Amino acid sequence: MKYQARIFVTLRPSVLDPAGTAVQSALKQMDYHVDSVRIGKYVEIVLDAADETEASQKLDEACDKLLANPVIENYRFELTAIAQERKA
Amino acid sequence: MKYQARIFVTLRPSVLDPAGTAVQSALKQMDYHVDSVRIGKYVEIVLDAADETEASQKLDEACDKLLANPVIENYRFELTAIAQERKA
Repeated sequence: MKYQARIFVTLRPSVLDPAGTAVQSALKQMDYHVDSVRIGKYVEIVLDAADETEASQKLDEACDKLLANPVIENYRFELTAIAQERKA
Repeated sequence: MKYQARIFVTLRPSVLDPAGTAVQSALKQMDYHVDSVRIGKYVEIVLDAADETEASQKLDEACDKLLANPVIENYRFELTAIAQERKA
């Protein structure tokens, strides 16, 4: 079974986000008044797994080891099964 | 009214993603077999707007002008109203 995963990696709330602050002040100069901007990563992965439990276990491992830095980042993901009979 | 926007900026499908390819081959070396990896940006913004239409118009402008490069990137966003009476 193929699954599409959408992974969101965000800085922990206690960690400063200088890129977000830069975007916020740029938006302010363009007359958009925004209260906060936080920038993270968005990763789309297509993977093979027997079922949703296995897919989500694999993704947890991949996120912990490679995609996110658990010291300063949080992650969450959404899984969707891709129908293999039809065009995905 | 305050809105929280979650913005996803992704490379257009026709644009090569060297970072995604690097992650894919790293995952392969770690024995995770994934078919594709695409890396994008994820931005969380809290903004003020009169209603959802105004918020989404402002965000479209901000994405076109600042957050995404429309030549090589697509974006989409989700809006959620933040209750101001309660803790958000």
